[in-house]
Amino acid sequence: MNKSHASDERPVGVFDSGLGGLTVARAIANSLPGESICYFGDTKRCPYGTRSEREVRRFALEAARWLAKHQVKIIVVACNTATAAALSTLQQLLSVPVIGVIEPGARAAINSTRSRRVGVLATELTVRSGAYTQAIERLDAGVDVYGCAASSFVDIVESELATGAHVRDRWLEGADIFDTPEVCAEVRRTIAPLCGRDIDAVVLGCTHFPLLSGPISKALGDQVRVVSSAEETTRELADILMRREQLAAATTVPEHRFATTADDIAVFAAAGSFIFGRPLKSVEHVDISELDALSVGHGA
Amino acid sequence: MNKSHASDERPVGVFDSGLGGLTVARAIANSLPGESICYFGDTKRCPYGTRSEREVRRFALEAARWLAKHQVKIIVVACNTATAAALSTLQQLLSVPVIGVIEPGARAAINSTRSRRVGVLATELTVRSGAYTQAIERLDAGVDVYGCAASSFVDIVESELATGAHVRDRWLEGADIFDTPEVCAEVRRTIAPLCGRDIDAVVLGCTHFPLLSGPISKALGDQVRVVSSAEETTRELADILMRREQLAAATTVPEHRFATTADDIAVFAAAGSFIFGRPLKSVEHVDISELDALSVGHGA
Repeated sequence: MNKSHASDERPVGVFDSGLGGLTVARAIANSLPGESICYFGDTKRCPYGTRSEREVRRFALEAARWLAKHQVKIIVVACNTATAAALSTLQQLLSVPVIGVIEPGARAAINSTRSRRVGVLATELTVRSGAYTQAIERLDAGVDVYGCAASSFVDIVESELATGAHVRDRWLEGADIFDTPEVCAEVRRTIAPLCGRDIDAVVLGCTHFPLLSGPISKALGDQVRVVSSAEETTRELADILMRREQLAAATTVPEHRFATTADDIAVFAAAGSFIFGRPLKSVEHVDISELDALSVGHGA
Repeated sequence: MNKSHASDERPVGVFDSGLGGLTVARAIANSLPGESICYFGDTKRCPYGTRSEREVRRFALEAARWLAKHQVKIIVVACNTATAAALSTLQQLLSVPVIGVIEPGARAAINSTRSRRVGVLATELTVRSGAYTQAIERLDAGVDVYGCAASSFVDIVESELATGAHVRDRWLEGADIFDTPEVCAEVRRTIAPLCGRDIDAVVLGCTHFPLLSGPISKALGDQVRVVSSAEETTRELADILMRREQLAAATTVPEHRFATTADDIAVFAAAGSFIFGRPLKSVEHVDISELDALSVGHGA
């Protein structure tokens, strides 16, 4: 067998509670342009952050089973809340391999720090869960971790996404529509607790935050390395597909397919195009009742 | 500040209970040829494997402190036993960063498996410690781990190293002196428990074992990916030095310096040249009493 010619054309499965995980899908589409992607956004039940762990585990299992049914070769949990609550459960229950966003982000933050002081910028729930702190301390018990809740960043992104075609077009042309004096002031105010502590690496522990990396980097200053868990998870995915000889063949024309539980798929498609960085051409609606059927027999 | 020009000429510190860690030093010298290396082998107190965890922690702390005193920029614990027993303690007590060999090996094994069945080939003590199983299951709770004790492999390597200049010269010329019918038969017998279980990735969890990777790969067959924790730790080190902008400048002429607690440094130098893949030019003796002084005040 000539192993060097092995390839796997099945799509990479990605899911999130809504739109945020499209930053991970975008990183995958940019870094691995030959890979097909099957994205599932559970918009109808978004946000997961205010739900119980048990409920998040059930929703995550349904999303993952939906992707598995669509023949993905690997599943990326592109949601920090779902990774913290459900990753190991999904890995145990599914035969398709599953990776999350926390471990790669934590490792990259450690590998980036010289001062051994790391900041974690995430939603309040993720900060409170301690998932990043645990992942970081498991890798380097001598690193100090400073969590900073920045839930307002999600609102900034979401409200900007709700604006019209003019802003959207500027975004698709490459302008940083979030780099405004108002946004920069709010970002500066929010991350103030991370300043003056000799922190030199900050991990973006929410899939919405890479959209604000311009203002965040500006506020933190040149000396601080900003690590995106979306980018790092994509690096890990690339390493996995390469080692397992499961990259799509170079000649493959990739398909990007999107599914959402949102009632209005046009809104999902318009807002999603912002984040994905290119138009979402194929968007389908998935009914919650279809998902319910997938969790039968596990009572999770 | 132009960050792209930052560099750090201080050596990379590496330690092991004796000679085995030189496979890690060799991988570093091959992959990062500009890096100076300061190696410490605690041959006088080798092997660590039969000692108490408390004792191994104390010895590891002494070795790490000796390296820190010699101004290394990072310490690599190139010994599985010491990594399992002492890594987090070292990370907490030392200001210089410390990495081990288990985490990188575990991650590479997971990233390599398609069948989600991974073998760990290590000394009996490392297998029994469960350190690899824990590291692997933390990353993918759905992977089955099969440990296989192969302590006899250490004896095979050590006894071959004790032979004369003729064998040594063949080794330095690139011949695989371990690829003999006798060694291959012993390797096949030892790893038999890993065969017929649909395992498709095996991690070499002992720093001696990369020397036997030829016979091991032959015995496992083409379908099984053999992961060397020495190689993977070097990849991790390279990522860390790159991200922290602490690689040595390209113009640096590296120094490779070796220290051992062995009474006879000529024997250490001769056997070490085998493993390091080139002559050890600078070897010094370190007295145990000098190390004792480094642990004063911690009573560990």
